[in-house]
Amino acid sequence: MRPSGRAPDQMRAVTIERNVSLKAEGSCLVSFGNTRVLCTASVETSLPGWLRGKGQGWVTAEYGMLPRATGTRTRREATAGKQSGRTQEIQRLIGRSLRAVVDLTALGESQITLDCDVLEADGGTRTASITGAYVALSDAIRWLEERKLTKGPVLKDSVAAISCGIYRGSPVLDLDYLEDVEAETDANFVMTGAGKFVEIQGTAEGAPFDRAELDALMTLAGKGISELTELQKAALSA
Amino acid sequence: MRPSGRAPDQMRAVTIERNVSLKAEGSCLVSFGNTRVLCTASVETSLPGWLRGKGQGWVTAEYGMLPRATGTRTRREATAGKQSGRTQEIQRLIGRSLRAVVDLTALGESQITLDCDVLEADGGTRTASITGAYVALSDAIRWLEERKLTKGPVLKDSVAAISCGIYRGSPVLDLDYLEDVEAETDANFVMTGAGKFVEIQGTAEGAPFDRAELDALMTLAGKGISELTELQKAALSA
Amino acid sequence: MRPSGRAPDQMRAVTIERNVSLKAEGSCLVSFGNTRVLCTASVETSLPGWLRGKGQGWVTAEYGMLPRATGTRTRREATAGKQSGRTQEIQRLIGRSLRAVVDLTALGESQITLDCDVLEADGGTRTASITGAYVALSDAIRWLEERKLTKGPVLKDSVAAISCGIYRGSPVLDLDYLEDVEAETDANFVMTGAGKFVEIQGTAEGAPFDRAELDALMTLAGKGISELTELQKAALSA
Amino acid sequence: MRPSGRAPDQMRAVTIERNVSLKAEGSCLVSFGNTRVLCTASVETSLPGWLRGKGQGWVTAEYGMLPRATGTRTRREATAGKQSGRTQEIQRLIGRSLRAVVDLTALGESQITLDCDVLEADGGTRTASITGAYVALSDAIRWLEERKLTKGPVLKDSVAAISCGIYRGSPVLDLDYLEDVEAETDANFVMTGAGKFVEIQGTAEGAPFDRAELDALMTLAGKGISELTELQKAALSA
Amino acid sequence: MRPSGRAPDQMRAVTIERNVSLKAEGSCLVSFGNTRVLCTASVETSLPGWLRGKGQGWVTAEYGMLPRATGTRTRREATAGKQSGRTQEIQRLIGRSLRAVVDLTALGESQITLDCDVLEADGGTRTASITGAYVALSDAIRWLEERKLTKGPVLKDSVAAISCGIYRGSPVLDLDYLEDVEAETDANFVMTGAGKFVEIQGTAEGAPFDRAELDALMTLAGKGISELTELQKAALSA
Amino acid sequence: MRPSGRAPDQMRAVTIERNVSLKAEGSCLVSFGNTRVLCTASVETSLPGWLRGKGQGWVTAEYGMLPRATGTRTRREATAGKQSGRTQEIQRLIGRSLRAVVDLTALGESQITLDCDVLEADGGTRTASITGAYVALSDAIRWLEERKLTKGPVLKDSVAAISCGIYRGSPVLDLDYLEDVEAETDANFVMTGAGKFVEIQGTAEGAPFDRAELDALMTLAGKGISELTELQKAALSA
Repeated sequence: MRPSGRAPDQMRAVTIERNVSLKAEGSCLVSFGNTRVLCTASVETSLPGWLRGKGQGWVTAEYGMLPRATGTRTRREATAGKQSGRTQEIQRLIGRSLRAVVDLTALGESQITLDCDVLEADGGTRTASITGAYVALSDAIRWLEERKLTKGPVLKDSVAAISCGIYRGSPVLDLDYLEDVEAETDANFVMTGAGKFVEIQGTAEGAPFDRAELDALMTLAGKGISELTELQKAALSA
Repeated sequence: MRPSGRAPDQMRAVTIERNVSLKAEGSCLVSFGNTRVLCTASVETSLPGWLRGKGQGWVTAEYGMLPRATGTRTRREATAGKQSGRTQEIQRLIGRSLRAVVDLTALGESQITLDCDVLEADGGTRTASITGAYVALSDAIRWLEERKLTKGPVLKDSVAAISCGIYRGSPVLDLDYLEDVEAETDANFVMTGAGKFVEIQGTAEGAPFDRAELDALMTLAGKGISELTELQKAALSA
Repeated sequence: MRPSGRAPDQMRAVTIERNVSLKAEGSCLVSFGNTRVLCTASVETSLPGWLRGKGQGWVTAEYGMLPRATGTRTRREATAGKQSGRTQEIQRLIGRSLRAVVDLTALGESQITLDCDVLEADGGTRTASITGAYVALSDAIRWLEERKLTKGPVLKDSVAAISCGIYRGSPVLDLDYLEDVEAETDANFVMTGAGKFVEIQGTAEGAPFDRAELDALMTLAGKGISELTELQKAALSA
Repeated sequence: MRPSGRAPDQMRAVTIERNVSLKAEGSCLVSFGNTRVLCTASVETSLPGWLRGKGQGWVTAEYGMLPRATGTRTRREATAGKQSGRTQEIQRLIGRSLRAVVDLTALGESQITLDCDVLEADGGTRTASITGAYVALSDAIRWLEERKLTKGPVLKDSVAAISCGIYRGSPVLDLDYLEDVEAETDANFVMTGAGKFVEIQGTAEGAPFDRAELDALMTLAGKGISELTELQKAALSA
Repeated sequence: MRPSGRAPDQMRAVTIERNVSLKAEGSCLVSFGNTRVLCTASVETSLPGWLRGKGQGWVTAEYGMLPRATGTRTRREATAGKQSGRTQEIQRLIGRSLRAVVDLTALGESQITLDCDVLEADGGTRTASITGAYVALSDAIRWLEERKLTKGPVLKDSVAAISCGIYRGSPVLDLDYLEDVEAETDANFVMTGAGKFVEIQGTAEGAPFDRAELDALMTLAGKGISELTELQKAALSA
Repeated sequence: MRPSGRAPDQMRAVTIERNVSLKAEGSCLVSFGNTRVLCTASVETSLPGWLRGKGQGWVTAEYGMLPRATGTRTRREATAGKQSGRTQEIQRLIGRSLRAVVDLTALGESQITLDCDVLEADGGTRTASITGAYVALSDAIRWLEERKLTKGPVLKDSVAAISCGIYRGSPVLDLDYLEDVEAETDANFVMTGAGKFVEIQGTAEGAPFDRAELDALMTLAGKGISELTELQKAALSA
């Protein structure tokens, strides 16, 4: 029995509200239940030095959490003077995940920075970030296309992410915070709209897991990603 | 003629939406036109070492801006490794402004941290922050009162803030971004509900100003603060 | 009754000793009673990147305090690894105040950096810094003029600064440290030789203040600035 | 055809030289072909504050790379002033992997820090680090056991790690640097001696991968881990 | 022929002005020609954690240079965010030199921090710092003695420092800046009043030097230290 | 009697193993007894900005210590966020020492960085570093010569370093850790193959020392350097 009463293969209510920023070239507010992340895509036409003149663009991401997104206040990273290892790990993952579906040559000499800022955290902030960032990215690419700044189709596929885990012995989809702290195994899956894997990260928090358990998680993830892909499509065609 | 078509003594539409955070002891989303700031109040019952055992509490504030709150993306301070001088100046101002209406002894041995995070910036982020932070603070104090953790009435008055400036030769109330970049003089007023001054900061951006001009700004500010005070009251009794 | 026995509208003894540095293009040691600040102006002919090619120069300031300028030793900021919020706030104020009387286009493509280092602190270090920095700046501009490196008159007016406050219920001019820690209201005024305002910063440390009190402080400030302006003139013509 | 001429399921020559440090409570020099990592385990009997009094110990890890472990010199992180995101990600992984086989309560109130310093890097430094760190950790635990400082069997199983990847379309075991830069998919597997998973990290560097490819990698990984487990046993019984 | 016209064994005019700080427990302004250093000694009765309860005190030093102490402005270390290697090297030397003549047990549980801040730099700032810091330290120890806070005679001897060098082939005493930049060999000697060595640092800036040259420098240094010792005595008995 | 049973003028067993790095242009593992330092020389053909276009190259050094090179674990400097004063002092010394025997103009527009990383520390790490770094440097220069990238003979002489000290009243050569912590005087000598001094650093750790003692240490150092010079020659001709 899950704390939320959800079925094992049931995701939380997911919503994607587009164009929430007046200034960003792409943006959305994505919610996975009580987890809410503001994603903006900022287009910069000057590339960082190390990329200039290579005939391609770049997509990168930064992640942050408002201090009181969490149950007790977390220290602001700007005050601490550095991003935590966890933050860096997540923003590197978001960037890699998005680049996996982007044709950087077709993008042309632009850089798109995705900022994923967690307003409220209730588990699954990294997967919500990837799912929302894809929508913001898509809008930023449309913005470039409208200005004829791309050199062909930029997006090769869509990308979304979901967490799964072994909670009290059973595989479940889309862990919320209460499940996350207690789960024996926690896995994040980043997958394309076509159902292929971009990234898998599985961690035994309690007991090590076996191949059968991993298989069960992969099946759940496939179902979740397919639902998220539909929601992304709907949001982008709204 | 103001870019927005407002009258010289007309504020932007101001809204205060309370209880926007599921976790914070007090919170609101305050908007001054297109400027939007998320304010949360976090109660901590363990005081920092230098305050412990003095029989009083503390109120402090931190300020941040999401990277794409601005027209072009601003570097994330957590990545830069430090808060800018501007950020520190603003958060010190917010903290001082709130403490001016708080009886720290009555507060008891608690610390309340106000986080003001700018989601969208269109001028006046520091004055919106103070105005919203007061509302979040009030709710956090109620939370403490309900738990009998205070030692008497904590709030001595309400506090709000507004900017004024000399724009194209005329004194105007509540500068938006377009006015702010062009104003000859820019002044921020922090005032109590009773109409007294907590902080005045006037800066000649172009030509120095004289006492008559300052008087005109003070009159405008008084009008604005009185409207903001009503809005705070309405929000808190909703 | 003031701790120093001064009349309410009486400043401390102010002295400005010019050319105290063998190397700087302008320098002075300014004393407001026991507060002593060493001000140097350094001319650099290479502008920072963001200003180059705009046909104008720049004036900026940095502020520091020797560790034992204070009653108990203060941690050295170079050891702490960063400037405090207070330090940044002060040096930004000094820079803005000086730029208010400088025609940056007439200055030509030079940058002048004012370093204000407090040797002894007894209240009013920021106002002494501005007052002394103006003198050092004037000498640096003469140095540029002698070398025909300016494009017309650079200084539009002189600038000086003074603090005032409500101490034990009465408005007083030029707070020393003992008054500063106890004052209900503390205000700093930066004004031109012509008597106009460049910056006003008034803060209620205890009770909020009203317009009548602010008026009284402005009157005192006007008197103080006029005396400081005479002392600056005398120093610069010595 | 692999650059090294190895068969697809063939690991590089792996050696584990124990007790290479005169001072550490456990240590080894582990080589996976030309990748060489010095692993030391340091026992500290004073726990960090947040763990004290909880009746359990802690195992943590730090990772570093000598500047010229790489083909061109890499900037020293101590000079750069911070550990890179990659470094933090790796050392967090090493720590998690080891803790998965440690009974922290049986460990008693000791902290063991594993330092994995790469002397020479030719791909697979994180997997070599985990494999070697387990050996150093085992010796450190023996050291504690000899002093009767543990409260029962500390190690629940052994742990080792290996990378696999899709290189030019084929699944291969234990990528070296030349393969790593070119691989379409790169996956790291951390597994117990009993063959269960502690951590899986699979990343599509080029094209996304499917479940059949992941299955192939898992099979290779299982073979590799079983060989590494034998080598660890042999080293520890030498 | 030296640029200053001094004889090879002639020091610059050295002056030591005591009690220049109103607040420090000991202070002096020391000048070696145009090199001027403000030295303050601050007594703190709370020891750093690692020294507490050992029945002894500590003497430490910090060194700084005002940005325009030099011919062209040097970046402020507080702005740069760290002390340079040179600064740290010098302040470690000053601390070691002073501790060499202090009986830390007799000092009791106090810490004395010497701040040496260079107001004007013309060569020999570290030797001037040590020479002046000894005088400030002596006064701070008298301050402690007057309050009966010591446990016997604290100072075992006096200590002073001087530089020598091979300039255009000849050994000379007390290098000024013009000599320093050109000297083939530069050596700093820290010696006690009794004529013994506390620290020798000799560096070949150009050609390596031989034992005869080093002997000549040692003889010059002995002469210089003996003059400095007299000046310290005179200052302390004034 | 020395703890190791060595004669007063007897060095520890010194070995220099060349070409221990597969990638560096020069490298060696140098051992002075149990002190072991890995030295690599990295050639970079792009000079730092401040040296470009001056028709000369540069030689610089960095120093580090693995956390468990010491008896108890030392905090990793990359984690601490900065290099200690001691580390900076040592790496500056290594750089200066090597440059003393290098003709920077003959080197051409290349930069050689020496990394000295201490694997095991038992006293004398800085002198071992200099001695080994010279060997790595020599190989890097040969590498440049083979590619015709130099403009004449680069090395003017060899350079090596050794420590001496007064241990229990007697001058001894090459202090190990046990002697180092107890020595009254500790001196490091950097000398050329021709027997001239490049750098002398003598420090009284306990009682100040006199000229006779220093003379004894210089004699010992001369003997040690002459043995080290032979070992360097042998290593380089192997």
